[in-house]
Amino acid sequence: MVGGGQLARMTALDAARLGVDVRVLAGASDQGVRGLFEVVDGAHDDPAALRRLADQVDVVTFDHELVPLDAIAALEADGHPVRPSSTTLSFTDKLHQRQAFADAGLPVPPFARVTSTDEVETFAAAHGWPVVLKAPRGGYDGRGVSVADDLAAAEDMLTAAAGRPLLAEAHLDLTMELAVLVVTSATGERAVYDVVESVQVEGMCREVHAADGHLSVSMVAEGRRLGERVAGLVESVGVLAVELFVVGDEVLVNEIAPRPHNSGHHTIDGCVTSQFENHARAVLGWPLGSVAPTAPSTVMVNVVGTDVDPRERAALVTEDVRIHLYGKSVRPGRKIGHVTATGTDHDEVAARARRAAAILEGSAPTSDTGATT
Amino acid sequence: MVGGGQLARMTALDAARLGVDVRVLAGASDQGVRGLFEVVDGAHDDPAALRRLADQVDVVTFDHELVPLDAIAALEADGHPVRPSSTTLSFTDKLHQRQAFADAGLPVPPFARVTSTDEVETFAAAHGWPVVLKAPRGGYDGRGVSVADDLAAAEDMLTAAAGRPLLAEAHLDLTMELAVLVVTSATGERAVYDVVESVQVEGMCREVHAADGHLSVSMVAEGRRLGERVAGLVESVGVLAVELFVVGDEVLVNEIAPRPHNSGHHTIDGCVTSQFENHARAVLGWPLGSVAPTAPSTVMVNVVGTDVDPRERAALVTEDVRIHLYGKSVRPGRKIGHVTATGTDHDEVAARARRAAAILEGSAPTSDTGATT
Repeated sequence: MVGGGQLARMTALDAARLGVDVRVLAGASDQGVRGLFEVVDGAHDDPAALRRLADQVDVVTFDHELVPLDAIAALEADGHPVRPSSTTLSFTDKLHQRQAFADAGLPVPPFARVTSTDEVETFAAAHGWPVVLKAPRGGYDGRGVSVADDLAAAEDMLTAAAGRPLLAEAHLDLTMELAVLVVTSATGERAVYDVVESVQVEGMCREVHAADGHLSVSMVAEGRRLGERVAGLVESVGVLAVELFVVGDEVLVNEIAPRPHNSGHHTIDGCVTSQFENHARAVLGWPLGSVAPTAPSTVMVNVVGTDVDPRERAALVTEDVRIHLYGKSVRPGRKIGHVTATGTDHDEVAARARRAAAILEGSAPTSDTGATT
Repeated sequence: MVGGGQLARMTALDAARLGVDVRVLAGASDQGVRGLFEVVDGAHDDPAALRRLADQVDVVTFDHELVPLDAIAALEADGHPVRPSSTTLSFTDKLHQRQAFADAGLPVPPFARVTSTDEVETFAAAHGWPVVLKAPRGGYDGRGVSVADDLAAAEDMLTAAAGRPLLAEAHLDLTMELAVLVVTSATGERAVYDVVESVQVEGMCREVHAADGHLSVSMVAEGRRLGERVAGLVESVGVLAVELFVVGDEVLVNEIAPRPHNSGHHTIDGCVTSQFENHARAVLGWPLGSVAPTAPSTVMVNVVGTDVDPRERAALVTEDVRIHLYGKSVRPGRKIGHVTATGTDHDEVAARARRAAAILEGSAPTSDTGATT
């Protein structure tokens, strides 16, 4: 696995259970795996380090997509199985992705490739202010995404991009955000997890709601259809997360992540087979495990760093939830864990998960049995 | 954790999920944890190694009980939290345990402490042949237990024991074997998992059946009552497995293991909180997780070594089961993994689990959809 964050950690924990030996290419700042898995020291963007990893393993896969495509393609040319492939990874360039999806007739937000204030002005004339400007590569958790309220703000962002093109996007009035996880084995077998609501705060996933009846039947059907179409289009192997916007009654494809994803963390405790086990199974060419939910309602709430160590607080969580902490150092605003609650009454389940997350973040007294903010 | 077998592996995997840092005292032959957790090199019976481990951790616990009690007591005397304590561990001496349980009025199989053929003959006169002879310490998975059909066989065993006393036990006509897992937090909080049937083959656990209606209400109640009494008697902290014999309508206490146990592996996939997570929670003094089952029927079947590597066979298991492999080298007769199936129809669930285990053991073609032998 290239990269040693929480996605590698959780994938490797599940793979270990299957008896699969895991090697993780991890740099100095990758804290999710040290002491837990055999680490190959090196940077994810160092071709020589990627080759050292590939030489030790049967199949190469990824914790994140911020990898040099030419180096990945070179591994493939030398016969190393790389899953997802460099072709699939190439779609993580947001400009390439959006254009390819639009060309394929998929519903996407209005967009343009911009390199100048003139182009932004033309786009804003058609779609109004503010304009969302995204760096095609390198962003995550809201990083690399800015909202320009006027041309002056857009100019600052273009200057910062230093001539590199940006993806301009209409600022949509979102009804809701959804996500669908499609998992495809190297054998071609495919399974689709139930479509979920993904609650974003400042560009970062904070909650995932997977519950019977939580979404309309048509929304679920459309989300699933789009997920499968995108998986085919990008030739996905492994888990593919497809993030969707709901605007009124319309479902649009926002963007993809060709790997396990925050919108699938609920699958560890809320589905027969987690996204992590299925990602491992898929890239190894094994049969996939069942993606069926195990409870009528599952809610995942991320634990975000504050000024307390959640490990010191875990003993205070008496709520019936499953705690997942990533072993990362605590930094305000950083995702450092999540909790999952399951049950039948969705509002109760959500309140329970939020309460536990708040306790871990140090923002709620443990005696507070009411809903948290 | 002292000892690096599959119990340490599974405890540490669950503890890691909670963000707990794990150190494992492991010798050269402990294969369950290398490459997975931070290992403190050393033998489980080396007082200096035990001290090295204790100096690095907040609490010491155990993968197995074959540890020097005086060295453990010395750690306690120096203020190291050791859970379970040396007092609890002292009950793993089968002679001490059996006598203490009998003295407390618990129902136990007829037994005697024997050091001579005369004593065996007296015991056999009262209880008949064959006589079961057990080494008080060091046995597991049927090792250290022999069945003497006559006095000559008993004499061989006494000779092998070289003067050390043995536990002589009546050879009972068992209706069934049960197990109950009691988990006690360092805070005193206690939870009891549902009583299960444990199917033993040649002294080794092969199957565990946890299912609604599988056992009579009175058997479940008596098993639970005995489990709680034993946990109190031995001052248990952490998971305590209590193995029970059913003879006719009577439930007898066979023996205990003061740690996670094979009879609780089904709790990973069949209960809200696994025995491993709850063992970690208990020894850390955290609130316990729910021990409620998540399905009407759960069956665990051990994967026993044959001449094939189960990791090479895992890709052939298309059954809806959860596979757990321990990363141990394969040796005929050695426990190297388990599978768990859940569902509603207990016979179907059991057949599914057996079929998957047989595939991993290389003893069934994958196209065989019938019950295995």
